[in-house]
Amino acid sequence: MQPASECVTIAVLGGTGKEGRGLALRWAAKGHDVVIGSRSAERAQAAAVEIRERAGANARVRGTDNIAAAQAADVVVLAVPYSAQVATAEEVAQQLAGKILIDVTVPLAPPKVDRVQLPPCGSAVQALQNHLGAQVKVVSAFQNVSAGHLWDLEHTVECDVLVCGDDADARETVVRLAEDAGMRAWHAGVLANSAAAEALTSVLIAINKRYKIAGSGLRITGVPTR
Amino acid sequence: MQPASECVTIAVLGGTGKEGRGLALRWAAKGHDVVIGSRSAERAQAAAVEIRERAGANARVRGTDNIAAAQAADVVVLAVPYSAQVATAEEVAQQLAGKILIDVTVPLAPPKVDRVQLPPCGSAVQALQNHLGAQVKVVSAFQNVSAGHLWDLEHTVECDVLVCGDDADARETVVRLAEDAGMRAWHAGVLANSAAAEALTSVLIAINKRYKIAGSGLRITGVPTR
Repeated sequence: MQPASECVTIAVLGGTGKEGRGLALRWAAKGHDVVIGSRSAERAQAAAVEIRERAGANARVRGTDNIAAAQAADVVVLAVPYSAQVATAEEVAQQLAGKILIDVTVPLAPPKVDRVQLPPCGSAVQALQNHLGAQVKVVSAFQNVSAGHLWDLEHTVECDVLVCGDDADARETVVRLAEDAGMRAWHAGVLANSAAAEALTSVLIAINKRYKIAGSGLRITGVPTR
Repeated sequence: MQPASECVTIAVLGGTGKEGRGLALRWAAKGHDVVIGSRSAERAQAAAVEIRERAGANARVRGTDNIAAAQAADVVVLAVPYSAQVATAEEVAQQLAGKILIDVTVPLAPPKVDRVQLPPCGSAVQALQNHLGAQVKVVSAFQNVSAGHLWDLEHTVECDVLVCGDDADARETVVRLAEDAGMRAWHAGVLANSAAAEALTSVLIAINKRYKIAGSGLRITGVPTR
């Protein structure tokens, strides 16, 4: 399949985790060049093998450490737990300069993950952007997509992606990458609006718990699809 | 039509505004007893006449001042602008004791209403609950429903309602009242989770602006409907 967007090299830091691995699979299957990043290059390589097996023979997926992955990529995805978010981004800050960083982080505070607990500055991604400064175009996306939906390429993901960012061109790139990953995606406004997406994840967890289901999601209504 | 919930007397404070008027119409059409509240009893009465004309000959809708409206009701709805939220609730605090207060408030900060700007304590409704104390069961709902969708009884509202509150029984009452008003509604967790619904309104406004539409909404996916 041809990607809707230009074929780019995407590094997925935290690509050994469920959410990162799922996104990596879908982009690889769509023809993008994917580099899995991890603290351990060996684990990244193992994950890459697993993803390649699912994505098909022509898929381009490799694994390496976070710094080399970020260095190699046009677009970097940060898909690590909240507790590692800022430290991981700081580790690769030099490699991120001038690039788009897609932050997938949800500021969950265990054990009450079904309770919204946003950080003082309003959203986890805004705190990250403040740390990294204007040299990195941080865009927020994918907070509400259950990892389980991503790992099966035959499965239609019934969850829209809210894409928030202060740079409209960077946001458009991420909207197209989300579409390449098989989802409907929307320009959802400035980076600060990520508060909505981050908070919604706890709401979806509360809904999963209350209605005894897995992987609830959301759809935006009232907008003609393109 | 018979309401799904028991027939109750509902006061809508701010029932002369678009959102309040729309909710009042739908509940009146469904057989509930509706009392429109306003700072001006005359304006409340005028709104009641208008709502009764749309709701049908058997509808029970009247208008009075906020205090008398809150006094008469089993359930009170607060549908005033954010700037008047706490003051209006404090005015009727005595009448609210032991009752459910459904707060519809969205903490928009004009002119940038397409930018999420939640209050320091996390959500506007949590601040209200803190003001009123435990004697009032505050439940948050309807933040994402565009008023335009409510005012036409023939129109199917394509927007789900996230119902947040710390009292599960009060939340259930509000879920049923939302269903009576023609919407799908979900138990969305504790009151603090209203941050998601409040923030989402700015996201929906940003989407309306970007895609040149009116009244985008959201649907929760993955949950079997009852």
